[in-house]
Amino acid sequence: MAVRKVYGSLNSPATLKVLACLFEHDLDFEFVPVNMDAGDHKKKPFLSMNPFGQVPVFEDGGIKQFESRAIIRSTSHEYGKKGEELIYWDVRKQAIVANWIDVEGHQFEPPALKLIYEMVIKPKNGSAPDQVVVAEAEAELGNVLDVYEARLAKSKYLGSDRYTIADVLHLPNLQSLLGTTAKKLIESRPRVKAWCSEILARPAWGKVLEMKDKARA
Amino acid sequence: MAVRKVYGSLNSPATLKVLACLFEHDLDFEFVPVNMDAGDHKKKPFLSMNPFGQVPVFEDGGIKQFESRAIIRSTSHEYGKKGEELIYWDVRKQAIVANWIDVEGHQFEPPALKLIYEMVIKPKNGSAPDQVVVAEAEAELGNVLDVYEARLAKSKYLGSDRYTIADVLHLPNLQSLLGTTAKKLIESRPRVKAWCSEILARPAWGKVLEMKDKARA
Repeated sequence: MAVRKVYGSLNSPATLKVLACLFEHDLDFEFVPVNMDAGDHKKKPFLSMNPFGQVPVFEDGGIKQFESRAIIRSTSHEYGKKGEELIYWDVRKQAIVANWIDVEGHQFEPPALKLIYEMVIKPKNGSAPDQVVVAEAEAELGNVLDVYEARLAKSKYLGSDRYTIADVLHLPNLQSLLGTTAKKLIESRPRVKAWCSEILARPAWGKVLEMKDKARA
Repeated sequence: MAVRKVYGSLNSPATLKVLACLFEHDLDFEFVPVNMDAGDHKKKPFLSMNPFGQVPVFEDGGIKQFESRAIIRSTSHEYGKKGEELIYWDVRKQAIVANWIDVEGHQFEPPALKLIYEMVIKPKNGSAPDQVVVAEAEAELGNVLDVYEARLAKSKYLGSDRYTIADVLHLPNLQSLLGTTAKKLIESRPRVKAWCSEILARPAWGKVLEMKDKARA
């Protein structure tokens, strides 16, 4: 049997999203680290898998797929466990999940990544966060989380009362934000705080963190 | 029967994408213009339909959905004509389409919107394009179109040999780019040029342009 492979980096939120999804589905796979510090994602042979030079790439049964959200959608459709799928086959229910998948990509992630860049990545590289950028991005993220707080009064998770990929997609950036001053934006909103604690406690996400710990050791 | 409604603006590419998709499916709907110049999308009652204050919103059978790509996915799943669906029910085939849907959102649209802002919107408002931004965005879009040129050697359309929503999503921005100097980026790549001519000639897209013409008259 061909081995499933994830080519990616444990420093890439997109890679971590895909790993969290595969662990939810109890799928066997091999993780192939791509050295992004050496720019290997912008060189051959990686470019033959993803001409846009971005991780991760997912290889399964001869098909090589890129774009993390697309990988997550299709693995969830293909491998979802009966009754605990991360998607719905019902078109109307999936419409709502699809809505919140795109909200993550277009509303939540842009300010989240700005904050993580300023407060996690820059300090690691020895430079100081730009406090003007931080303040603006915190205000932007706060507005998004206000919408989430209202939404979570209507359903247990973002897309429905069931855990779906709309939630999975938030894991890596929520985890990183909790290590910054933006933590207050999450903790000051009770429903967002409870949702965040619950999804970060999923065993599948625990396995991703374990992989990161092992790689660091 | 409840009437389907699209709340949006004919100046919004996201609205035009949804309209093109509904016309492909021969769906009856009512178009409800949202006056974006007056900021109506950032006020009630619009905010009760989309708390992020963005057009379009699609109302169908009591469900109000936002995020254009999510609307397009779910209407295609729900109303696709047998054998000419804009999506696939086959998980492996849809995985590839999903891939190119996300490429449009993450690779193609960002430089396309920068170019349209500089060369269409700014001149309309009486200011000059920033040529440095234009040059950078043209280089960025050129790289994306190089990937498209290679892709279109392998399949007739972006997602497969069939016209799918991965193609539909490109219509409004391709149409606008053809009215700018970025036209050369499309015309200098023979397969991109042929693909672009073919998809812009779809009768469903013609109906969208007709709506725009009537609104202007």
